[in-house]
Amino acid sequence: VTVPAVATSSIPVTALTIDDVLSAAARLRGRIERTPVVRSEALDAATGAHVFLKCENLQVAGSFKIRGALNKLLTLDEADRARGVVAFSSGNHAQGVALAARTVGASAVVCMPTDAPPLKIAGTRAHGAEVVFYDRQRDDREAVARRIAAETGRVVVPPYDDPAVMAGQGTAALELLEEVPDLDVLLTPVGGGGLMAGCGTVMRSRRPGARIFGVEAESANDTYLSLRKGERVTIPPPSTLADGIRVTTPGALTFPVLRTVLTDVVLVSEEEIVAAVRFLAVDAHLVVEATGGLGVAALLGRRVPDQRGARVGVVLSGGNIDARLLASLLS
Amino acid sequence: VTVPAVATSSIPVTALTIDDVLSAAARLRGRIERTPVVRSEALDAATGAHVFLKCENLQVAGSFKIRGALNKLLTLDEADRARGVVAFSSGNHAQGVALAARTVGASAVVCMPTDAPPLKIAGTRAHGAEVVFYDRQRDDREAVARRIAAETGRVVVPPYDDPAVMAGQGTAALELLEEVPDLDVLLTPVGGGGLMAGCGTVMRSRRPGARIFGVEAESANDTYLSLRKGERVTIPPPSTLADGIRVTTPGALTFPVLRTVLTDVVLVSEEEIVAAVRFLAVDAHLVVEATGGLGVAALLGRRVPDQRGARVGVVLSGGNIDARLLASLLS
Repeated sequence: VTVPAVATSSIPVTALTIDDVLSAAARLRGRIERTPVVRSEALDAATGAHVFLKCENLQVAGSFKIRGALNKLLTLDEADRARGVVAFSSGNHAQGVALAARTVGASAVVCMPTDAPPLKIAGTRAHGAEVVFYDRQRDDREAVARRIAAETGRVVVPPYDDPAVMAGQGTAALELLEEVPDLDVLLTPVGGGGLMAGCGTVMRSRRPGARIFGVEAESANDTYLSLRKGERVTIPPPSTLADGIRVTTPGALTFPVLRTVLTDVVLVSEEEIVAAVRFLAVDAHLVVEATGGLGVAALLGRRVPDQRGARVGVVLSGGNIDARLLASLLS
Repeated sequence: VTVPAVATSSIPVTALTIDDVLSAAARLRGRIERTPVVRSEALDAATGAHVFLKCENLQVAGSFKIRGALNKLLTLDEADRARGVVAFSSGNHAQGVALAARTVGASAVVCMPTDAPPLKIAGTRAHGAEVVFYDRQRDDREAVARRIAAETGRVVVPPYDDPAVMAGQGTAALELLEEVPDLDVLLTPVGGGGLMAGCGTVMRSRRPGARIFGVEAESANDTYLSLRKGERVTIPPPSTLADGIRVTTPGALTFPVLRTVLTDVVLVSEEEIVAAVRFLAVDAHLVVEATGGLGVAALLGRRVPDQRGARVGVVLSGGNIDARLLASLLS
């Protein structure tokens, strides 16, 4: 396992286990929402499956990201926490870190690109973090974060390539399986792979026979290609609507876990993503951002092998979508 | 208590009690969704209250209406059920009755106005009911339903003026209080008054000191005026966006209950209703129809006396909003 540039975890780099996720769940208990699992008769009818929606769009700060960020902060010792944290993110991880830091009384600096969605910049600030901008074309965001970390002693909270972050994300699947123990299939979006690494580890442990699919947009197929090649592949910057999975290569720490737990990755088109966001809003009455709709896009597009009749858990990863964008997708 | 024209209940007309609602809950158990209670940090911040959203927009058929309709059908004897049911509704009650009938294997005819929202006509048919149209200007919808009932022996399922319907609606508050026992305030929309009659009865019984407010649009203030006059007042047909509360007078059976349980009715403007639908979609990631947003409209508009710091339960009554309308409200 390659140690990634910004990995600063104090947890030894080993394979993620169900015990890591159980420990994370114990740390997080009572500090975040236990999000509901929602059923939609219309979605069942449209997909032929029995679908269970784990609503991380209803999580505090609007996505699953608080799980990993807060678990990470809760594993830091007092001295580290007192120096505060730093993160780089254009999206939900920024808000997750900001809120996690506020929850434990730590200060947070978040490096965001100058062209980050205004909604997510505002959300990050609203949760009490200081935002430092970088130029997406000119600056290396990891270098910016590392420099801040070196200058201030702040601990970097990586968006996915960190065992504590992965373990935290896995608590979503733990809760889902507590409510629906007999799932046949699990679907989550795959960007850097933190959510799937955690959730897939839980699913493999608790439901060894279940099938586990990551979902990527067709243009953001780095994990899809990497699984086939057996090593991490780097793709050009993808131009999908699903901004939460616009990464060019799987994480150094997440990929070995994904190789172990994933049945496969399924790809969806941009049209299928839009259809999923619309369907969830109009028929299931849930607002998701594009990335949050990936699992439903796969089901509506009949992309999941043998989906008919299967009991399928889907993590709706987040709901932070701009009002104007949502309006245009609904029109 | 005046017996309304279309009341055909076999339950004696008496004051609604908590036991009626408990019996309804026992009948409904496992047949409908136990909808989640959702928290929104953004909503708490915007209202100064601790808000608990009872998500009937995530109920089967998209609103609370299935609770009352199914409870009514489950109280019918075999012979009545075999003859089927008939209902009149331009909206959610139609879908609720259709799905309730299918659930118990009864046939349903629903009388809808020719200008009913296409989404709700389609939903009613999708749930297996036969739709019979009437002209809103020319025909008396109750007379149409009564004629069908007389000709076919079908049992009329009234939208609100029926003890079994009221009791069923009250199960929403029962579930809410099971999860959040220490509410200070309850808010629900008030149209015909079935939802509030049931929920208010539960709240008065379980939390005698709590304050209970119905919410109406300013132009649909029939219950507001009726409470002040001490008798049922009839207003001109209201022109609010909240189509679920476009009634001209409280129910003959619901009004006596509302007089007993309500602290008061608060009124909201059309602008406040739109703001609530937007806020819930963008900040809380929940889609509601205009009527479903009334409680949140009251809180965002600071219409609820002493709302600051209060623990407020809000029933989001439904989510069946046309995609185009939602898009326009978000723009």
